[in-house]
Amino acid sequence: MITNTNKFAVGIDIGGTNTVFGIVDHRGSILYRGALSSRNHENPEDYVDELYSVLMPAIEHVGGTELIRGIGIGAPNGNYYTGTIEYAPNLRWRGIIPMSELMTKKFGVPAALTNDANAAAVGEMMYGAARGMKDFIMITLGTGVGSGIVANGQVIYGHDGFAGELGHTIIIPGGRMHKGTGMRGSLESYASATGVAATAREFLENRKEEKSLLREFKAEEIDSRLVYEAAIKGDKIAMDVYAFTGEILGRALANAVMFSSPEAIVLFGGLTKAGDLIIEPTRKHMEENLLPIFQNKVKLLFSELKEADAAILGASALVWELK
Amino acid sequence: MITNTNKFAVGIDIGGTNTVFGIVDHRGSILYRGALSSRNHENPEDYVDELYSVLMPAIEHVGGTELIRGIGIGAPNGNYYTGTIEYAPNLRWRGIIPMSELMTKKFGVPAALTNDANAAAVGEMMYGAARGMKDFIMITLGTGVGSGIVANGQVIYGHDGFAGELGHTIIIPGGRMHKGTGMRGSLESYASATGVAATAREFLENRKEEKSLLREFKAEEIDSRLVYEAAIKGDKIAMDVYAFTGEILGRALANAVMFSSPEAIVLFGGLTKAGDLIIEPTRKHMEENLLPIFQNKVKLLFSELKEADAAILGASALVWELK
Repeated sequence: MITNTNKFAVGIDIGGTNTVFGIVDHRGSILYRGALSSRNHENPEDYVDELYSVLMPAIEHVGGTELIRGIGIGAPNGNYYTGTIEYAPNLRWRGIIPMSELMTKKFGVPAALTNDANAAAVGEMMYGAARGMKDFIMITLGTGVGSGIVANGQVIYGHDGFAGELGHTIIIPGGRMHKGTGMRGSLESYASATGVAATAREFLENRKEEKSLLREFKAEEIDSRLVYEAAIKGDKIAMDVYAFTGEILGRALANAVMFSSPEAIVLFGGLTKAGDLIIEPTRKHMEENLLPIFQNKVKLLFSELKEADAAILGASALVWELK
Repeated sequence: MITNTNKFAVGIDIGGTNTVFGIVDHRGSILYRGALSSRNHENPEDYVDELYSVLMPAIEHVGGTELIRGIGIGAPNGNYYTGTIEYAPNLRWRGIIPMSELMTKKFGVPAALTNDANAAAVGEMMYGAARGMKDFIMITLGTGVGSGIVANGQVIYGHDGFAGELGHTIIIPGGRMHKGTGMRGSLESYASATGVAATAREFLENRKEEKSLLREFKAEEIDSRLVYEAAIKGDKIAMDVYAFTGEILGRALANAVMFSSPEAIVLFGGLTKAGDLIIEPTRKHMEENLLPIFQNKVKLLFSELKEADAAILGASALVWELK
């Protein structure tokens, strides 16, 4: 007999550069993994066609589409209610893309779509650090900063499906310009990989007298990986970059905590590799900016999902919530 | 037969100075109103005793406690889950006050308690401007700034019952000191009645050459009412106070919108009397600080509840959600 528990979910994470996908069982085991470029196709129909051609053999292998409960999609600017990707600045396709509908038509199974951070939140709630929690905030610290907010056991999608854009809230009015959005002082302009590199360049420029391992590189070569490598070797400027990044992130988290009073904040993504270098200043500045009734209560956790799996698991987890 | 629809709810709003209470029917009509001081009693037990002595005759008048479905309480630092008031800086009673339990013991009916702004949000959803909405934010602009956040049709109380403290989020890092909390740059330090008066004093001090109706008064006499009266007479400095207050409020609302993507924001309280003087700059700066996907979508509404009734209605509305 075919039931939900012996069906599979497809998880697809559409990133700015690459798409990763997988077939996942009800327990969160990934049976099959694959990837394709998100940038090779001028229109989304051709992209879905290529996805079909690489994914269908795997679907056949697990028993065909009748064993697929649905397709879950994580995508930038993903609208949960309409299943559309809307004006995503990092994708090649312009305007409003009815991605859920394209998938359903092509594969013949239901599809659900949300932004990547909301998908990550669902994944973390189902398989990761937030198992059993009803109120938590997921923060993804990658090329950009994403967030997914869970309250009363449900992801907050908001009135029109776009809730959870903490990365674009303004933390430093008049602060650093975000090249993608034109806004000044948003969390993402500091606490993303791009932000970390920009902070490092600023510190190197403003502290010219000071030695740093990062001075071996040209300004334009500096990226978050180099900053990390210098910091773990004890480089003062690189360590200060994390201290500053944590300060901004901590302030943003304090505001978020006073908004939704979560049990925990789960951090995920490249920046979390820095471990205590980032978590300690983040915690300190979060606590300092909280009202006493919120202090020393909120757990700051790292994701428990493997980075390679998280996007697929998160997207696939949407499927089990399909009505 | 006694059913929910012919029962009544008691609504009690505990303010820093006064307590107002009323008996409310299922349709939101207030059958009886009363008030007492919140400051006359050294301990909360005596306060509840006095409340009992003034409220019971009215309860008897509508048919006795068997017709009372419950008591709903709005109070500063009210914890919904535990029914306690915790470390409320504006109340006379220190520490953790088990107010719901005290009421239940005294009156012999169930009680529910939350902070005043969450209560206002429930009232607005049940009887006011947010009827039928599943995602909105209530902002109360009074002596302080409170907020109640509704997502997926439910008030967000958060993990430990204190969610929705938007008034204490930091909008201007290093900005104006909030005397009650010691924090700098919180929304409440600008967008409250106290904040409006402080801004007026600053403007008068910094623009000494400029005439203003407010110069008839000593600095310490200036309050939000005087600023309002000057502004509606076209006084430039007073009008600029609202423009500035709206700018700060608009920025804070933009951050809140990107967090929970509400259908509307409902504004309530003294500051809203200023009408367009406050709403126009608020709207402008909210829109300017939103990502395009959020722009021109969120309704900015004024509460539809009479100010005298709102606190009672909001608190009483909690009762109909009692299990």
